[in-house]
Amino acid sequence: MRALSQQTFGAPDVLRVVDVPRPTPLPSEVLVRVHAAGINPIDAAVRSGHFPLLGEPPFVLGWDLSGVVEEVVPGVTRFEVGDEVFGMPFFPRAGGTHAEYVAVPSRQLARKPRALGHEQAAALPLAGLTAWQSLVDAADLQPGQRVLIHAAGGGVGHLAVQIAKARGAHVTATAGAAKHDFVRALGADEVVDHRTEDFTETARDLDVVLDTVGGPVGRRSIGVLRPGGLLVTVVDRTDTALRAAVLDAGRRFAGITVEPDHVGLEALAALADAGRLRPHVEHAIPLADGAKAHELIESNATRGKIVLTV
Amino acid sequence: MRALSQQTFGAPDVLRVVDVPRPTPLPSEVLVRVHAAGINPIDAAVRSGHFPLLGEPPFVLGWDLSGVVEEVVPGVTRFEVGDEVFGMPFFPRAGGTHAEYVAVPSRQLARKPRALGHEQAAALPLAGLTAWQSLVDAADLQPGQRVLIHAAGGGVGHLAVQIAKARGAHVTATAGAAKHDFVRALGADEVVDHRTEDFTETARDLDVVLDTVGGPVGRRSIGVLRPGGLLVTVVDRTDTALRAAVLDAGRRFAGITVEPDHVGLEALAALADAGRLRPHVEHAIPLADGAKAHELIESNATRGKIVLTV
Repeated sequence: MRALSQQTFGAPDVLRVVDVPRPTPLPSEVLVRVHAAGINPIDAAVRSGHFPLLGEPPFVLGWDLSGVVEEVVPGVTRFEVGDEVFGMPFFPRAGGTHAEYVAVPSRQLARKPRALGHEQAAALPLAGLTAWQSLVDAADLQPGQRVLIHAAGGGVGHLAVQIAKARGAHVTATAGAAKHDFVRALGADEVVDHRTEDFTETARDLDVVLDTVGGPVGRRSIGVLRPGGLLVTVVDRTDTALRAAVLDAGRRFAGITVEPDHVGLEALAALADAGRLRPHVEHAIPLADGAKAHELIESNATRGKIVLTV
Repeated sequence: MRALSQQTFGAPDVLRVVDVPRPTPLPSEVLVRVHAAGINPIDAAVRSGHFPLLGEPPFVLGWDLSGVVEEVVPGVTRFEVGDEVFGMPFFPRAGGTHAEYVAVPSRQLARKPRALGHEQAAALPLAGLTAWQSLVDAADLQPGQRVLIHAAGGGVGHLAVQIAKARGAHVTATAGAAKHDFVRALGADEVVDHRTEDFTETARDLDVVLDTVGGPVGRRSIGVLRPGGLLVTVVDRTDTALRAAVLDAGRRFAGITVEPDHVGLEALAALADAGRLRPHVEHAIPLADGAKAHELIESNATRGKIVLTV
């Protein structure tokens, strides 16, 4: 089968479409024909060697997928051949969705939302689970609560805005001016231009801040939280000084790493089918042009998501 | 750390306690100090080479665990250091719980039921999830339905009886005479001695049969199901002739392989804490005597479960 692979760490041009053996699903798993696969900042970090999560190359990147069940190992009852599914297999122990086929544990998949095509559904697992596990599992966001979402036009951010609105929260969003119309259309109640405005002047007494940016953004967000409010960061999880500063200020801190879980996938699918969650795919790029997709993800300029089509 | 390992396939005496590096949990995972770990028939099948699920030795077997969180990788919010947990990590891609420490994805763990000690909790994950995923996820067992559970005194069977009773079902059980009192005490409504009685003469019009034995038992069970009733086998998943015979008879067929899933663990823990589910640990054996535990599991004579203490 075709897969996007690399022999060395390096710039996007290390990526090559190669022919590799089709994976063999084990008991409890299914084989999925990948139709589309999201690309995320972590793919670029692993590719470059900045975050060598998968050890030394060669390896195939990719954790998002949307596709069709090609083979069911006897013993799996959740899916049948031909079912449309989406999911995030094996994160972070192995990648592999930037390929024609991938073997996936059944409980790391859910049924693809009917309301979404494969390209949109492939944009949902890693970024959507990150947002869901931040706002729902960790923050337990409630109707009427006030949340600030940083980089609300990005992959995680644009899904987080929609999830927060679906939960009945009041959403303040930061984004560059070029993305303001986009973020408003997602449902954000207030949009702040982080380049020209100071969000600490407009936002205050918030219940939750979701930081998808990192660096000074987290520290500056402490003051906009109400006492007991929660800073959720999906970036600076290991920043013990930030954590201490948050706790010293009487606020709460949660660092989040996304985790495979069919429960979150099913919740995202239900929201999508209810018309409350629609991933925005800015670029759908053929697998053979994977290097271009990596260049785009590193530019940080994309609204929403980039997916590879397979 | 100490781990029960093997250098070659073979009889139980290939097992040795060796010193191996403590595993390193990745993002989304925690390190657990194992207090007790279940042993299951699949451990013996992998050890002997009969079912080489983990490739060639050396490897450390074991999927059940109950223990205490020793280390939390930043990014995980579901657990804190010191939490008592139980679970079934990495099945079937890697083993490793027959050891002092194991790295576990957070969503393949749940909080240990308060009502159970570590030895009892370690008896629950693989066998309990097998029973839960068979009777609840696959069969959707309803109050008042009639179910037959084969080998009801065994590891999966004795938990299945309790789960079925907790669901409000009527339970017929097969077991050898020596286990009848045990199985009755679990709540079984009728107990059939499979050695001296013919279960097809006493059981009929059943909604569900759970086959944990395999071979002729499944085929003989078809006739005791009502039209549309479900044969669930956790053994003969790949027996296409059995499947065809079931479907030809107008009954339904489900082969089950257990799958890691915190949802089932949480359900099992809730039942245990409600006093509705109590794993029976027949033997608790120190890790150093792992070979003896393997001999016992191969004897098939145990009531309930065998666990290793670490």
